[in-house]
Amino acid sequence: MKIRIDLPQDEIPTQWYNIVPRLPEKLPPPKDDSGKGIELLKTVLPSKVLEYEFSNEEYVKIPEEVLERYLQVNRPTPIIRAKRLEEYLGGNLRIYLKMEAFTYTGSHKINSALAHVFFAKQDGANFVSTETGAGQWGSAVALAAALFRVPGHVFMVRTSFFAKPYRKYMMQMYGAYPHPSPSDLTDYGRSILKQDPNHPGSLGIAISEAITYARDHGGKYVVGSVTNADIMFKTIAGMEAVKQMEMIGEDPDYIIGVVGGGSNYAALAYPFLGRELAKGNVRRTYIASGSLEVPKMTKGVYKYDYPDTAKLLPEFMMYTIGSDFVPPPVYAGGLRYHAVAPTLSLLMKEGIVKSRDYNQDEAFKWAQLFSQLEGYIPAPETSHALPILKEIAERANGEKRTVLVSFSGHGLLDLGNYGEVLFKD
Amino acid sequence: MKIRIDLPQDEIPTQWYNIVPRLPEKLPPPKDDSGKGIELLKTVLPSKVLEYEFSNEEYVKIPEEVLERYLQVNRPTPIIRAKRLEEYLGGNLRIYLKMEAFTYTGSHKINSALAHVFFAKQDGANFVSTETGAGQWGSAVALAAALFRVPGHVFMVRTSFFAKPYRKYMMQMYGAYPHPSPSDLTDYGRSILKQDPNHPGSLGIAISEAITYARDHGGKYVVGSVTNADIMFKTIAGMEAVKQMEMIGEDPDYIIGVVGGGSNYAALAYPFLGRELAKGNVRRTYIASGSLEVPKMTKGVYKYDYPDTAKLLPEFMMYTIGSDFVPPPVYAGGLRYHAVAPTLSLLMKEGIVKSRDYNQDEAFKWAQLFSQLEGYIPAPETSHALPILKEIAERANGEKRTVLVSFSGHGLLDLGNYGEVLFKD
Repeated sequence: MKIRIDLPQDEIPTQWYNIVPRLPEKLPPPKDDSGKGIELLKTVLPSKVLEYEFSNEEYVKIPEEVLERYLQVNRPTPIIRAKRLEEYLGGNLRIYLKMEAFTYTGSHKINSALAHVFFAKQDGANFVSTETGAGQWGSAVALAAALFRVPGHVFMVRTSFFAKPYRKYMMQMYGAYPHPSPSDLTDYGRSILKQDPNHPGSLGIAISEAITYARDHGGKYVVGSVTNADIMFKTIAGMEAVKQMEMIGEDPDYIIGVVGGGSNYAALAYPFLGRELAKGNVRRTYIASGSLEVPKMTKGVYKYDYPDTAKLLPEFMMYTIGSDFVPPPVYAGGLRYHAVAPTLSLLMKEGIVKSRDYNQDEAFKWAQLFSQLEGYIPAPETSHALPILKEIAERANGEKRTVLVSFSGHGLLDLGNYGEVLFKD
Repeated sequence: MKIRIDLPQDEIPTQWYNIVPRLPEKLPPPKDDSGKGIELLKTVLPSKVLEYEFSNEEYVKIPEEVLERYLQVNRPTPIIRAKRLEEYLGGNLRIYLKMEAFTYTGSHKINSALAHVFFAKQDGANFVSTETGAGQWGSAVALAAALFRVPGHVFMVRTSFFAKPYRKYMMQMYGAYPHPSPSDLTDYGRSILKQDPNHPGSLGIAISEAITYARDHGGKYVVGSVTNADIMFKTIAGMEAVKQMEMIGEDPDYIIGVVGGGSNYAALAYPFLGRELAKGNVRRTYIASGSLEVPKMTKGVYKYDYPDTAKLLPEFMMYTIGSDFVPPPVYAGGLRYHAVAPTLSLLMKEGIVKSRDYNQDEAFKWAQLFSQLEGYIPAPETSHALPILKEIAERANGEKRTVLVSFSGHGLLDLGNYGEVLFKD
């Protein structure tokens, strides 16, 4: 009857996993012709974060201070067996959900936010700064800042700041300072506001503001997703899952999840995949999925591109539909990013990680079905992983298959979006 | 470093607790001069629910089907030690939070909703119906209905239906049918709409509609809070907590929580208090708190009153500020109820359970402080329990005290209310 695999807090893994030394070929280095991008990063990133970005150490010790906060935000997260969904899909799959949605900010993002903020504090930062779109990443950084008692400044895309106040209030409950971007706190923001006081803002502008605000006022900048260091910090999820699957004697045939920038999926998959790469034999099937409205994985090109629309940072070799790509207004905000993390892109190019893209309507219907079967409302992003399960069930051809899913977030703050799409009167 | 006390799913308690046979004096019976109230209940309540309402059995076996759904909605819930809050309060308290907020609908309400719906299904009901204000109870019933595959009709106060759509969408995600009340589905609703097509509705009207809709169409009516049966179904929380406290060798000096109708607090406290009453020696201090804007506990009168504003049901002996009391628009919707459950009222009259009321401003400031210290955003209702901790810490006079708190709900869907009160621009 038991469907929840708990990992007690005193058995939390004490190492992060870094896949870089196990990649089948060398990761192409960042490209920075002017030298300005790397120089800027050296100024605004915490020194340890920059060090880990280029590290070849496979297992890295997690600082005690970060481990303690992992426990504080409800780690380890359980794995839940989705028996009612298994039944619905014909009974040949065993489906295990790694519940990153159970952390206190409701997704995998707090896992790296805590590490970034800790290393910023270690460098004596006056504050941390970051950008956020709809507010998921911003609220994770806000909580991390609260738990390390460091001021947190979050530059939030102006249109979301006013249209989607829930995550803004969440940051304020945590004591952080959300600013509508463009803001009057930076030269860049002021110059934009001067031309258009009602400028809606963009993630690119918010990144520029967060970086220059940190640079000019003794703060450190916190960068989420796509970077090697950020993915490594999030692998606590996969390290836990390795232990949990061993505890119950299961070995997944498939590992699936969704890709915004790629850190959520990579964080679960890499500790498993790394072990296979070390043995030189990849038996499992790895499938990542995204939004068909932002089809960087299925229609993108593997090339050097900027990770930020402002083009302040160095270029990386990755699958991209272009840093200037303007995504349609899909509600899975976390999937709107234009590129795939360099390590994950390389693994996709090598055919080791497969990809799929699904449209919003299909994903949302799965979200509703999942809610009714399993009782838990997934984030719109997370629901894009569910159609893969149907494909696996159909392909299984009557054979038994075990699937591990990165269940990256809950949909409680997205109910308005579900309502607009599914229940319009 | 460990702060979470997990109870594995295969150790979930298999009995509910009924305090009625252990009360220090006989519970005054319901008063129903016309006989119509009891008659109506016999028609619309599931037969087992009615039986348990008048039961003198102390420990009642939980049906397998309900136990299985408890696991499905994330039971057992952990107990979390609030070490950072302890520090803030001076270090003399050990504070343990029973996290009912961790269930899939975010509060203790699902614990009884599952039992009610199961017993309705056992009676062959075509559907279940219930009423809801802001939607907390309605969403719990909606999930219970989904997990038992029974249609769920929820009569939601019209003004909330349109002003607070998130919980309405939640019910729809679960496949239930929320109706704005007054509705055109019942004679009573139609008669009100005829006079005023934009009538804002009330909980009293919604109760009438839910009851008569069930009566007229072969459904069963699901009644939350205050009744003996409903409290008993929710004691799974307290039964778990007894085990968890034993596991770590702790014996709480205080058991605290908030009172809307009383079922949340009673559900945690009764399994502990019942053991003390059985021994004839109550050592612990029991304190329940509520909203000063609806001061039924501190300014109410112990007398016979109707549990429903429509006065359809029998009267009960309880602390009440009157079933006609119109509460001010406080955001802790769950605390707006006018009376205290009969068993809890009796225990308050006997001085065995103490009471406090706090105003919204004080509670909300505690909510923000708690969020920053512990990383978790409490429901507005739940935050009304936090000021008690300060009082206990001050009274401890340097001695060590252990406190167990019913942490009844999360505040994610209440961020708008927190924002309006705390962060008004």
